[in-house]
Amino acid sequence: MPPGYRFYPTEEELISFYLHHKLQHNNNININCVIPLLDVYRFEPWQLPRHCGELCHGDPEQWFFFVLRQEREVRGGRPSRTTVSGYWKATGSPSYVHSSDGRVIGVKKSMVFYKGRAPTGTKTKWKMNEYRAIFKDDVPTSIPKLRHEVSLCRVYVVSGSSRAFDRRPTAMETS
Amino acid sequence: MPPGYRFYPTEEELISFYLHHKLQHNNNININCVIPLLDVYRFEPWQLPRHCGELCHGDPEQWFFFVLRQEREVRGGRPSRTTVSGYWKATGSPSYVHSSDGRVIGVKKSMVFYKGRAPTGTKTKWKMNEYRAIFKDDVPTSIPKLRHEVSLCRVYVVSGSSRAFDRRPTAMETS
Repeated sequence: MPPGYRFYPTEEELISFYLHHKLQHNNNININCVIPLLDVYRFEPWQLPRHCGELCHGDPEQWFFFVLRQEREVRGGRPSRTTVSGYWKATGSPSYVHSSDGRVIGVKKSMVFYKGRAPTGTKTKWKMNEYRAIFKDDVPTSIPKLRHEVSLCRVYVVSGSSRAFDRRPTAMETS
Repeated sequence: MPPGYRFYPTEEELISFYLHHKLQHNNNININCVIPLLDVYRFEPWQLPRHCGELCHGDPEQWFFFVLRQEREVRGGRPSRTTVSGYWKATGSPSYVHSSDGRVIGVKKSMVFYKGRAPTGTKTKWKMNEYRAIFKDDVPTSIPKLRHEVSLCRVYVVSGSSRAFDRRPTAMETS
């Protein structure tokens, strides 16, 4: 790829392409090279970049992983988001993710990593967005539902330094 | 390219790769497919997206062009940035662009498009960053200088609507 080309997906691409393919077991080799499956809670956040997909190696900004639903969650419990040195804690409420044509395609949960033990941990600059897909199977009688089996996580750090192109322009207009 | 891969360059890539190659007449086919040469002031801003490089077609957010120095500028005058329906006006002062290792590699000028005639035009959401490179030739006695022959322009629109990943995470940290 020429310089300047990189994996910089929209939320719609993450959910409607990558997470859908994963949930439907389309184990396309490309998908795993871009977003590998990883038990992210087995690692400290700063150990995660080295586990990113081989087609994303060297990205200094964000890292994507598929995460399987935990056994305890399957049994009706709450997922454990504790690591050796700290824990991930939700910020705000989960929100819906919409497609560009306005459909609800998923749910997004944002988390911050704290060092130490709850509730006295110290906030760090490591953040995560966790996406789950809402969709129906390719069966006429299927109804849309939230799919818990696999989530897609985007890990990133918030830095105080300004950077060119932080301000991403958005939708195109014609006048 | 898999979904989610797109041209999303840093300023350093724009200047140190694309603008340098253009200034040194490395007319690599790939460069022109990514960033074509265009007299952007012959067009209204909203006509520019359709002229973007073929490897960037469909980008709804930003459009890149090389722009030759105008004849009047060669003769010592100021460049004309007037179109049929309006004009581009500088905002703020030009600023230096630094490489990731801290060297000054260029100058950046930001502009906003106004409809009508100065000084009574109406501000629009169309913006432009104009980059010029500062570098020295591959000659031992060469000293760094601002290169005016070609600039690189990034055209984009500012929208009020929020979009996921507007807030780009920046430098990676290890704790």
